[in-house]
Amino acid sequence: MNTSSSSRRTLLKGAASIAALGALGAPTARSQDKASGKSGLKPGSVILFQGDSITDAGRRREVLEPNLDKGLGSGYAAMIAGGVMADHPELELKCYNRGVSGDFMPRMTARWKEDCLDLKPDILSILIGINDIWHTMAFGTNYKGTISDYEEGYRQLIKQTLAAKPDTRIVICGPFTTRDERFKSAVDGKTPADFAAVAKKIADDLKLTFVSFQAAFDKACKATPSNFWLWDGIHPTTAGNALMAQCWRRAVGI
Amino acid sequence: MNTSSSSRRTLLKGAASIAALGALGAPTARSQDKASGKSGLKPGSVILFQGDSITDAGRRREVLEPNLDKGLGSGYAAMIAGGVMADHPELELKCYNRGVSGDFMPRMTARWKEDCLDLKPDILSILIGINDIWHTMAFGTNYKGTISDYEEGYRQLIKQTLAAKPDTRIVICGPFTTRDERFKSAVDGKTPADFAAVAKKIADDLKLTFVSFQAAFDKACKATPSNFWLWDGIHPTTAGNALMAQCWRRAVGI
Repeated sequence: MNTSSSSRRTLLKGAASIAALGALGAPTARSQDKASGKSGLKPGSVILFQGDSITDAGRRREVLEPNLDKGLGSGYAAMIAGGVMADHPELELKCYNRGVSGDFMPRMTARWKEDCLDLKPDILSILIGINDIWHTMAFGTNYKGTISDYEEGYRQLIKQTLAAKPDTRIVICGPFTTRDERFKSAVDGKTPADFAAVAKKIADDLKLTFVSFQAAFDKACKATPSNFWLWDGIHPTTAGNALMAQCWRRAVGI
Repeated sequence: MNTSSSSRRTLLKGAASIAALGALGAPTARSQDKASGKSGLKPGSVILFQGDSITDAGRRREVLEPNLDKGLGSGYAAMIAGGVMADHPELELKCYNRGVSGDFMPRMTARWKEDCLDLKPDILSILIGINDIWHTMAFGTNYKGTISDYEEGYRQLIKQTLAAKPDTRIVICGPFTTRDERFKSAVDGKTPADFAAVAKKIADDLKLTFVSFQAAFDKACKATPSNFWLWDGIHPTTAGNALMAQCWRRAVGI
């Protein structure tokens, strides 16, 4: 890490703290994206949501067309897609959800050509990481990946994506939980907060938009019990999905 | 119908026309609901969405608890519920979806105790009618009901609801389509527009909030092809669901 990027992050941290004093779910927006008007939206733009069960949200996998409610699921992705399309009808955007329940970085990477590159996204939103911890615990797949594997996998994925379509605007969403203690037995003892910090570091290094859902949930949980937002500490309720959609749209500026 | 209610309707029509000049999806709001601050929201309020497939929107019928994304589905009901809960977190609202795909008035009425009265809604939103036409056509159930049966059934349903819980705020949503010609062979030749007019008449007579989704879609379709909003002329895309949610929230004022 060089000095200039370090200074930039320090400045951004300050800006984020000020933003956090604002409305519920205030995001850590990348001010340069907004200031330069680089929303990434143009007529016919493709918006793709990628991730795990939180993104998947009960979508029907056989529905491959864009913009259909059964293909977009019942989570934050559908709420963002619907809101952005209704607010920019003249653009006739195409929105896809390709989140897959249970996915962690290596599994998502394995389906990247079909589920990302082939769709040629103009805006790509990624929310992945909670299962990179979960699967190292005593629940099934015996995955041995560490937080370093997560970081390396994430960087490779972005490199591959930008090599295929350099003008893709990539939005990195940090993993989150309201029950950090459930993850203490992970393979390297890292928690979702650690993974979110890595995701933010990647976003900062590569000048990508970062969305801190954790900050939004932390703030919301001060006024309302956490299970109003995340029913099991991980998966959002409908209120939680709407909060995420508000947070994402503010951060991304569309 | 007495003279005063007729005058009131004339006045409301004027107000609605002015409102229709405003933002996309401008609703025909009942100004007295808003003016008097009778939103119907209080801590712990129950909001219930009732109707057919458009409301159902792929919800999982076995999920009976409020506020869960799989129980609320992927349609306008989830978008409204999420938005209202996220905007009023301190109230810890309880939102249910009990729409059932294929339902028309007699079928919905048959499940009213379990699927409405027992939930004791503070706000009840109903969207029903398109299948009261559809089922009289050559597609299956050989239903012989007319538009008069629909009106009588609707009035009885509201009477029963208010008898059980007089302070329920009832929101009546008009059925809609972008392919009116598909319904020409209905049993009495009535179209969705005729059914929506009856629904509005009931709302006006009983001083209930009416939501005109048709007006929102008509306006939206001037700028964007109709299948961007209703993929088959009846069922909303995700953009259509978001448009409905915006329209409903403006009309209901929450």
